[in-house]
Amino acid sequence: MIPSTTLKLMTRPLYVASRSFVSGEPARPTIKTEIPGPQSAILLKDLDSIQAMKSVQFFVDYDKSLGNYIVDADGNTMLDVFTSISSIPLGYNHPNMLKAFDSDHAKKVLINRPALGVYPGNDWVDQLRNVLLSCAPPGLDQVITMMCGSCSNENAFKLMYFKYMDKVRGGIPPNDEAMKSCLDNLSPGTPRLSVLSFHGGFHGRTPGALACTHSKSIHKIDVPLYDWPVADFPRYKYPLEENTQENTAEDKRCLDKVEEILERQTKNSNPCVGIIVEPIQAEGGDHHGSANFFQGLQDICKKHDIVYLVDEVQTGGGPTGKMWAHEYFNLRDAPDIVTFSKKMLTGGLYHKPDLRPNNAYQIFNTWVGDPSKLILLDSVLKTIRQDKLLETTLKAGDVLLSGLRRLENQFPSLLHSARGIGTFCAVDADTSARRDQILAKLRTEGVHCGGCGETAIRIRPALIFETKHANIFIESLEKVLKTF
Amino acid sequence: MIPSTTLKLMTRPLYVASRSFVSGEPARPTIKTEIPGPQSAILLKDLDSIQAMKSVQFFVDYDKSLGNYIVDADGNTMLDVFTSISSIPLGYNHPNMLKAFDSDHAKKVLINRPALGVYPGNDWVDQLRNVLLSCAPPGLDQVITMMCGSCSNENAFKLMYFKYMDKVRGGIPPNDEAMKSCLDNLSPGTPRLSVLSFHGGFHGRTPGALACTHSKSIHKIDVPLYDWPVADFPRYKYPLEENTQENTAEDKRCLDKVEEILERQTKNSNPCVGIIVEPIQAEGGDHHGSANFFQGLQDICKKHDIVYLVDEVQTGGGPTGKMWAHEYFNLRDAPDIVTFSKKMLTGGLYHKPDLRPNNAYQIFNTWVGDPSKLILLDSVLKTIRQDKLLETTLKAGDVLLSGLRRLENQFPSLLHSARGIGTFCAVDADTSARRDQILAKLRTEGVHCGGCGETAIRIRPALIFETKHANIFIESLEKVLKTF
Repeated sequence: MIPSTTLKLMTRPLYVASRSFVSGEPARPTIKTEIPGPQSAILLKDLDSIQAMKSVQFFVDYDKSLGNYIVDADGNTMLDVFTSISSIPLGYNHPNMLKAFDSDHAKKVLINRPALGVYPGNDWVDQLRNVLLSCAPPGLDQVITMMCGSCSNENAFKLMYFKYMDKVRGGIPPNDEAMKSCLDNLSPGTPRLSVLSFHGGFHGRTPGALACTHSKSIHKIDVPLYDWPVADFPRYKYPLEENTQENTAEDKRCLDKVEEILERQTKNSNPCVGIIVEPIQAEGGDHHGSANFFQGLQDICKKHDIVYLVDEVQTGGGPTGKMWAHEYFNLRDAPDIVTFSKKMLTGGLYHKPDLRPNNAYQIFNTWVGDPSKLILLDSVLKTIRQDKLLETTLKAGDVLLSGLRRLENQFPSLLHSARGIGTFCAVDADTSARRDQILAKLRTEGVHCGGCGETAIRIRPALIFETKHANIFIESLEKVLKTF
Repeated sequence: MIPSTTLKLMTRPLYVASRSFVSGEPARPTIKTEIPGPQSAILLKDLDSIQAMKSVQFFVDYDKSLGNYIVDADGNTMLDVFTSISSIPLGYNHPNMLKAFDSDHAKKVLINRPALGVYPGNDWVDQLRNVLLSCAPPGLDQVITMMCGSCSNENAFKLMYFKYMDKVRGGIPPNDEAMKSCLDNLSPGTPRLSVLSFHGGFHGRTPGALACTHSKSIHKIDVPLYDWPVADFPRYKYPLEENTQENTAEDKRCLDKVEEILERQTKNSNPCVGIIVEPIQAEGGDHHGSANFFQGLQDICKKHDIVYLVDEVQTGGGPTGKMWAHEYFNLRDAPDIVTFSKKMLTGGLYHKPDLRPNNAYQIFNTWVGDPSKLILLDSVLKTIRQDKLLETTLKAGDVLLSGLRRLENQFPSLLHSARGIGTFCAVDADTSARRDQILAKLRTEGVHCGGCGETAIRIRPALIFETKHANIFIESLEKVLKTF
């Protein structure tokens, strides 16, 4: 199972002093206290007097954190393979990002934040083209910035509604009755339309995005939501190569279900205007779908003339070794919309020209994004190209995945279903409790990792994560597994 | 009608060289081309190949803009009394904001943007306390940051739902059936609940916020929304002091309607968990409500034990001469929630402790705001205090409002209903077309202003807008009115 290149890497001494992409990065973790340590505990208590944020795990000294290493408020230096839920593209304090606001112009972009939908700066078009379009998914040439992943999806849904209703009306603008009734949330101006999403999917937390999110009850409980339908996302048996027949049947079952739901929704006068799907269901447990499944979804969308929206908020920006994870699916046409955020540092959506809204102010808000984030993203993209970080990510991912496969063979009662593309890797523990124990013990070893779904260990390092870091991770995990 | 102090100011020579809060600020507008000029037209055409953003009015040279003066891509220097929809607190390129990111620490905050709900920086609690709580509405000591006004309101709604459902269940956590059903958007886990809002109100564009928005059809048409109820916001006769009896009756009519709707919603099993209201309906036409009306709303909320949410996204941060417009209403208790964004530079919500969610991850998203915005806000708040900008705003507002009153008396067929608090002023034109003509002609005079509602001229300058700027505005408006 393990490629020979990986075996060679694994037998090398691990902590040789070797160059990192961020110079001065620690050679390995150093743990001084339990985590959260006493200083984090004090700050957490203090925070609790101001806001209820029980999700806080520890406080961070971002001034001291460097490269792949996060330093907490108690001085513990951890290898960070979770990177603020996959949102730190170049690790901490990358010199290129530190320089991004050195110029007077960049500083002025930062402090003169405009309403981009009415008064953009005179370099805004260049920024959109040179930064965001320079890394656009193949086949997509329209882009709109937004503030975060949730509102990117919400605005993508609006594009779907507009296109659908335009078709329903045969291109005729809405009449007076529609324009008046919508002011009171009444039909015909406020139509009944739905978006199809998948069990286990995560698309954000504002109401439309949350109606499409089905990863964990705690995100949804007690929140009124649209009565939108949910389809099954494939659940494969691993290793994939030993379960081809079953997994192909699973794809077919899920695709048939999608067709069935689309027809039912139309019959029930709550038609689906589009399908939203993650290339890898990240928050819901790192569930992968095959190229075959994603091609099938696109075929279904084309057949029903509805919008195919690929949510790349977590997968986009490089962690799979390509800028966009859906590039692995060999789709015969680009998705209609691709949404992004996290590692892209700005939210936003790429889309096809046929989804352009007919009128001003239909896709709009005060800020419509933040131009200062494009200055940061520019330095990120230049660094990715200059340092060939997508190749680095593929190499490190190879070490991660082969390491996980070795460990699941070595500890079959503890780990299973190792999977991943690039460094976007995961492996399942036998139980939810075990997963949490593994994560806690990894932290005492100086490795900060995360979980997702019921039992998955979620690995989301930065793009400067190299094979040497992957080796530290695998070695630490092995050490932890041996304690059970 | 006109206070003697104002008359004195108006008879002074207008363009004396006097110190501005931002040194080097132009003494007056300079117009070189039509607006949008040829350069803006080229950029707009270029933008249109990348995104459909027909709302763009002109492109801006933010490097050259200074203080109250915005310089467009064609070199036109305009007095800006609209400030990117009221979102530029200290005008352009204020030296204190330019210095905000000089320190290494500030730069590192900017580039190491964390997931604040799990890994906040070790200075985060201090920042929340020293910046956001330092200007909190009286009586509110809990604060959560968000990305923008819409998601601040969406999260405020969640706090309302949680409190309501907790009460319905008598403090018992949701059972397994609820936790399971919510994953599929089904009851009982997904309840039917509503938020009451007002005709003419604006609260944002994500689905929950948009269901509470009733200012313009173009924001809502073709978007599926909750079937939430809408109440009447008072529509007063001006001048207020000549129409006391009618306006008091209007308050009563509107409050009675609110009670009626709340009872109907409960009867129809779609109970209201709270009321959302702007202190001044800004986007919908600058409609003011009386202290009596807002006190009455609070009484109704207390009687029905539902949440009173005051949306200060446009009114908050100083333009009324107080940090929060609702401070003018002498409420007998703080509102339960106050949301903010725009001039505050970060979105967020202040709330009472009884609205703290019971569980981790109920109010959460990847970023939960942006700590770099608090660094900017800190410099804004310090400047407001140091330069006494709330007093400046009151003085300039006095000149604006008395000037508008003089002009509506002078041109009664063109203008009516001058109103305002601080510089948060408006006046109505006789028709929508006239309003648009006035705004266009003001621009050729070098004054960039905005509209709202059907016929209102909306005045939203920065907090460094002084009496001398107010005089330029009034003089320019007078010049324009004389052309009709």
